[in-house]
Amino acid sequence: MKYLLKLSYCGTDFAGFQVQPNANTVQAELMRAAEKIFTVPCKITGCSRTDSGVHALEYFATLEPSEGGANIPPEKLPRALASVLPGSIAVIAAKNVPQDFAVRRAVSGKEYVYVIWTEQHGNPFLEKRSWHYTKPLDLYKMNAAAKHIVGRHDFASFMASGSDIEDTVRNVTRCEAVRESDGTVRIYVAADGFLYNMVRIIVGTLVYVSEGKITPEEVKAVISEKDRKKAGKTAPADGLYLNKVFIDF
Amino acid sequence: MKYLLKLSYCGTDFAGFQVQPNANTVQAELMRAAEKIFTVPCKITGCSRTDSGVHALEYFATLEPSEGGANIPPEKLPRALASVLPGSIAVIAAKNVPQDFAVRRAVSGKEYVYVIWTEQHGNPFLEKRSWHYTKPLDLYKMNAAAKHIVGRHDFASFMASGSDIEDTVRNVTRCEAVRESDGTVRIYVAADGFLYNMVRIIVGTLVYVSEGKITPEEVKAVISEKDRKKAGKTAPADGLYLNKVFIDF
Repeated sequence: MKYLLKLSYCGTDFAGFQVQPNANTVQAELMRAAEKIFTVPCKITGCSRTDSGVHALEYFATLEPSEGGANIPPEKLPRALASVLPGSIAVIAAKNVPQDFAVRRAVSGKEYVYVIWTEQHGNPFLEKRSWHYTKPLDLYKMNAAAKHIVGRHDFASFMASGSDIEDTVRNVTRCEAVRESDGTVRIYVAADGFLYNMVRIIVGTLVYVSEGKITPEEVKAVISEKDRKKAGKTAPADGLYLNKVFIDF
Repeated sequence: MKYLLKLSYCGTDFAGFQVQPNANTVQAELMRAAEKIFTVPCKITGCSRTDSGVHALEYFATLEPSEGGANIPPEKLPRALASVLPGSIAVIAAKNVPQDFAVRRAVSGKEYVYVIWTEQHGNPFLEKRSWHYTKPLDLYKMNAAAKHIVGRHDFASFMASGSDIEDTVRNVTRCEAVRESDGTVRIYVAADGFLYNMVRIIVGTLVYVSEGKITPEEVKAVISEKDRKKAGKTAPADGLYLNKVFIDF
């Protein structure tokens, strides 16, 4: 029996999704909760690694109880798991999938949203859920730069140094900064896949453009030089949300 | 020197506004922060008591440093206080007020908003910031009942039992339930003043109406009987936000 879970979580209290020694993670919480419900150890596989402090408005994971576990129909699973999970993780829906369903392979793309709180004063309700950045943001310039990011490019300049990924070509299908009426600027980045810290480096680069450190046109050169040092700083994890997962099931 | 502060705070980590022994409160945090900035003990007076776990989107308090404190212009105060306050409390603005300015007397009314999260699954981002109530809410009935609450009435039925307030007449100027596109129902209650737990009991009563336990018309009798037992249950503190303070300054 294999289940696909649709989840949402607030990442503030977690050292990311993936199990780690000496730190609480979303995967560890799901494993603990699933074992309580199914009465046997369960395997949890996530659709993506998220870093410490990163949030997910939408996330998918598979759950596989070991042999001999309780027989739970998928429609009862969200409520059963809710009774043993912390409130910072919600199971929105669950369905059965074939035993050979591989969640990472099923994902054709993802969209992140990065939330910047732009007022001078802090926002107690976006504390640890946004980047508090108070200089004026030039959305016109940022979106002019964002246009150069959209498309199939080698994003080596937008990968944390030290990553050992070899194929750094990704297809970005959306890169857009939107000013909301609630005092936030939200930056949406969708792609078929992401390099380590890619969204946070894109956000940092768009902020560099807003600050006039580079022109929107120069983002083309930042991409073509394939050098992490040419791009902007890595924006803080707090503001990053996995927004949508494009998944076939 | 006396300052009027406009604040916002997330009440989750606080035992309400007012200083209490053995519990952290917003007032205690403000006193600690002000003393650091002004280098002398400071008096903080709030516009309203809020209960443990209740939030404020808008709140006013006065700050009076003792003799000999640092001389800080009001426009510098929000940033100075932000540097020593926890992120769950924000100072939005500050101005000087006359020494005889009394913040409670200056308040002519307040508006609360009560947030109900209505989806079956939990919302990790509204955990401790909403009431998770999953039965269908009948907004038509609730608003039909809410109309009877608007007006100048004796709200003794909507006061926590044990309160020793004698004058229980208040003028409610708004009572309205609104379904938002984000999965919440928000109930707005504005009045010239509030009895202890009044908004939470109004919310509980409107939910009783939605559940068919009483009809919208019967709310008139709930008011006229002046008996706490006739009204609905007290809704949880988590969902309550002080939304607006009507203040003359």
